[in-house]
Amino acid sequence: MQIDILTLFPEMFSNLEHSIVGRARKSGKIDINFHNFRDFATNNQKHVDDMPYGGGQGMLLMPQPIFDTLDSFPHENARVLMMDPAGRTFDQAFAEELASEEQLVFLCGHYEGFDERIKTLVTDEVSLGDYVLTGGEVAASVMIDATVRLIPDVLGKKASHEDDSFSSGLLEYPQYTRPENFRGLSVPEVLMSGHHENIRKWRLTESLAKTLRLRPDLLDTYDFTEEVSDIVRQLKQTDKAEL
Amino acid sequence: MQIDILTLFPEMFSNLEHSIVGRARKSGKIDINFHNFRDFATNNQKHVDDMPYGGGQGMLLMPQPIFDTLDSFPHENARVLMMDPAGRTFDQAFAEELASEEQLVFLCGHYEGFDERIKTLVTDEVSLGDYVLTGGEVAASVMIDATVRLIPDVLGKKASHEDDSFSSGLLEYPQYTRPENFRGLSVPEVLMSGHHENIRKWRLTESLAKTLRLRPDLLDTYDFTEEVSDIVRQLKQTDKAEL
Repeated sequence: MQIDILTLFPEMFSNLEHSIVGRARKSGKIDINFHNFRDFATNNQKHVDDMPYGGGQGMLLMPQPIFDTLDSFPHENARVLMMDPAGRTFDQAFAEELASEEQLVFLCGHYEGFDERIKTLVTDEVSLGDYVLTGGEVAASVMIDATVRLIPDVLGKKASHEDDSFSSGLLEYPQYTRPENFRGLSVPEVLMSGHHENIRKWRLTESLAKTLRLRPDLLDTYDFTEEVSDIVRQLKQTDKAEL
Repeated sequence: MQIDILTLFPEMFSNLEHSIVGRARKSGKIDINFHNFRDFATNNQKHVDDMPYGGGQGMLLMPQPIFDTLDSFPHENARVLMMDPAGRTFDQAFAEELASEEQLVFLCGHYEGFDERIKTLVTDEVSLGDYVLTGGEVAASVMIDATVRLIPDVLGKKASHEDDSFSSGLLEYPQYTRPENFRGLSVPEVLMSGHHENIRKWRLTESLAKTLRLRPDLLDTYDFTEEVSDIVRQLKQTDKAEL
């Protein structure tokens, strides 16, 4: 996969040099190019922004530097992504969609807004959530991180994503590692029992209980087995008893 | 504000050295400390993770290095935040809440899960959205970026956040800067008219139209004036006419 990032702050992306994304780059599974669009500004002062027509506070990115930067490299079949609070909300399904693409282009604005005409270059306006960031850089970092780990063979066995929350459709059960007792806090007995079937059932029950309590919406699309239906019924009865 | 970040990858936070967050650090408005909890591991090999009790793929962060790192600096009244898909969803109201705190502590796991006992140290489990990241580092970066810009005097006038989407309760109207014509794309006439009242009304109408189309849920909590009610009624009629 090729990733092209248009930004005034390429030095803000150190997170893409390390860990899983860093290794995916070294092994050639992804290739990340930075394009500082200030280099493409045709005015003498290399300005990339100007005041809004009609008045108002803040500056806007001008169309010329962005259009010319995009003209400078091939991206015919690329997804061209821009952060916008009005855009489609980024989620795991979106990440999976992006992970199957051959090229992604990210336009990162930086506290300025975008001239509306820049949006004609964009295939996807994306929102990370209902909050405002100082720039698109950290948002692009999040999207790249979530996407690259889904590319085949990028995650090793050690960091398998098959047990992830969301991947299974349920929230994750509580997990424990050594020591067995730490500052008076103990690991649940069942996990030390070596009884695989009891452990499996305990984990499934804990996952379902947590999901019911915190994210019942996830169960709307969950594929219920008979066992799961039984556990959910019991959990709901226990809940009622506690009220 | 003091921010303490527990991470195995302090080098992934270059985004906090630049731009608005970088300037807030230089001016002393915030102070960011990194704590590599591997330095606190008491085993000879400096391991911070181990296999889960009860079996399963993946590694878990052990409680000891994290507990001891937190013991090493004062944080009595701090918010201690951990990423968890089951946590409270991060949004602008959450960022505003954090911006009023004196100390924030972020626990960043890195593709490992956390031993459940670590959660006893945490005041807030937070989710950025319904997607999985390779680590808490980019998520913490996003939260810090969204929070720090809300601290008084951190944003200059130039980058005022009062016109932000969400801050006004509506999505932002389209904005344009120079040139007036670019590759056949023109700035709407009204913005060039110099007629302030027409411009204000055009912008309000565009904001409302965009919000109605893409995020009608935002209007549920919006404070309607008589003018806004009139515009919304007209927009809805036009919509019906187009169907």
